[in-house]
Amino acid sequence: MLKYQQIANEIEKYIEDNKLQQGDKLPVLETLMSQFEASKSTIIKALDLLERKGVVFQVRGSGIFVRRHKRKGYISLLSNQGFKENLEDFHVTSEVIELEVRKPTEEAAANLNIGRDEDVYYVKRVRYINGQTLCLEESFYNKSIITYLNSEIVSESIFDYIKEGLGLKVGFSDMYLQVDKLSEEEAGYLGLKAGSPKLCVETIFHLTNGQPFDFSKVTYNYEQSQFFVQANSSFL
Amino acid sequence: MLKYQQIANEIEKYIEDNKLQQGDKLPVLETLMSQFEASKSTIIKALDLLERKGVVFQVRGSGIFVRRHKRKGYISLLSNQGFKENLEDFHVTSEVIELEVRKPTEEAAANLNIGRDEDVYYVKRVRYINGQTLCLEESFYNKSIITYLNSEIVSESIFDYIKEGLGLKVGFSDMYLQVDKLSEEEAGYLGLKAGSPKLCVETIFHLTNGQPFDFSKVTYNYEQSQFFVQANSSFL
Repeated sequence: MLKYQQIANEIEKYIEDNKLQQGDKLPVLETLMSQFEASKSTIIKALDLLERKGVVFQVRGSGIFVRRHKRKGYISLLSNQGFKENLEDFHVTSEVIELEVRKPTEEAAANLNIGRDEDVYYVKRVRYINGQTLCLEESFYNKSIITYLNSEIVSESIFDYIKEGLGLKVGFSDMYLQVDKLSEEEAGYLGLKAGSPKLCVETIFHLTNGQPFDFSKVTYNYEQSQFFVQANSSFL
Repeated sequence: MLKYQQIANEIEKYIEDNKLQQGDKLPVLETLMSQFEASKSTIIKALDLLERKGVVFQVRGSGIFVRRHKRKGYISLLSNQGFKENLEDFHVTSEVIELEVRKPTEEAAANLNIGRDEDVYYVKRVRYINGQTLCLEESFYNKSIITYLNSEIVSESIFDYIKEGLGLKVGFSDMYLQVDKLSEEEAGYLGLKAGSPKLCVETIFHLTNGQPFDFSKVTYNYEQSQFFVQANSSFL
C-alpha cells in the first residue's frame, strides 16, 4: 500500500474512533503533515482520495471537514464508498441453491461480452441478513477468468475469494436498477407474496483491465433493504 | 473553466460524436498532448477527471479506454456521471401541485440541520416523462439559502435556477433509497393502484461549503423508471 493510501486509512480510522460527525473540521494541512510526517503533496493525495470516497469534503479557504451521513441501518449501494454500512457489518449468510458450470443465457453472454458456447459458473443463492431473507442472487461468472469455484467458496464471500484467493483486481462496475413485482418463484425464495414490490439490481463487474467477469442479477426483499449512495460534487 | 476541464469536455464530446464503445482505445498521451497543445500534467488531469466521471478507464501499461454502458433508456441515478441519460435527454415536464413558504416538518428540519421555526420553501410536483407520470416530488428548500422561488421557476428545472439564477455552487449529496408500496395519495398522483411498488429516493443536497439546502423526497412510478449507476474501481 502506498504511503498516501495508508495515511488516508488512518485518517478514516481517526474519524470513526472519535465518532466525528458530518461537518466536523479536521486539523489543518500543516498539522496533518507533521502528524503523519509526510509531505504536503502526500497529505493532499490522501485527502483527495478520502474526498472521492465520500469520507471528507474540502472547502477552499475553509478547511477539510468530515462527511458522514447520519442514518444507520442503510446498506451502501456502491462498495467503494467510505463508512459504508456494507454487508460485512451486518450478519449476512448465504444458502446456495445452485452452483454449476454451464453455457450462458443470451442475456448473460451479451453482458459478459462472451460467446454462447463459452463456459460460465452459474451461482444461485439466497442471502440472509440477521436471519431474514435479504435477496435472491443469480450470478454468471466467466469461467476463463473465475477459473474455480466450489460450494464452500460460494457459501461465503465470493468477492473475497476472487480478490484474495485468485488475486484478481476488481475494477469498475455498471449497475442497473429497476423496481417491479415479484414473480411466484422469486417470492417463494424470499418468503414474500407474489406481486409484492421488488428491487432488481443487475451489475456487470469488470477487472481493472476493463474485462467483464461477473454478470449478477439480485432481487431484494424490499422489507429488509434500504440503500444509500453518496454522490460527489460535480466540481470534483 | 480551467484548461484541463475544457479538454475533458472535448474528449467526452469526441467520444460521443464518434459513437465510441466501451473498450475502444483512445489516442496515447503524447498524441493527446499535441492534439490539445497541452502539457502532460494537464492531459493527465483531464483524463483523471474523465475517469472519475465514468467516461474513460485507464489501464496502466495499456492505455486509456472508453467507458460507456450499453443500455439505452436508463436514467442516471447520480447527476455527476458522464454520458448520463439524464432527465435533460428525455422530455420531462412538471405540474406544480403546491409551492409555499412554511415551517419544516420535524424530518425536513433534521435533514436540513435547521430549527423548526425557520422558513422553508415547500414544493410539491408531479413530473412527467414523455407524457407518462415519472415521479411525485416533495422538496423542502432552506429559504435562507434558496431565497426566492415562484411558480414559473418550479415548473422548470429548479436546479438550473439555483445554479444559474442564484449563482450557488451545488456540492455533494446523500441519497437514501427504499422500495415500498404506494399509499392511496401517492398512487392517485401517479395514476397507479395503491399498493403497487414504489421506489422512494430521499436526497439531501449540499452546497460546496457543506451546508444542506434541499431535502427532497421523490416517489417514482416503477413502470417508467429504470436507473443506472457507474461505480468506480476502489483502486481509484
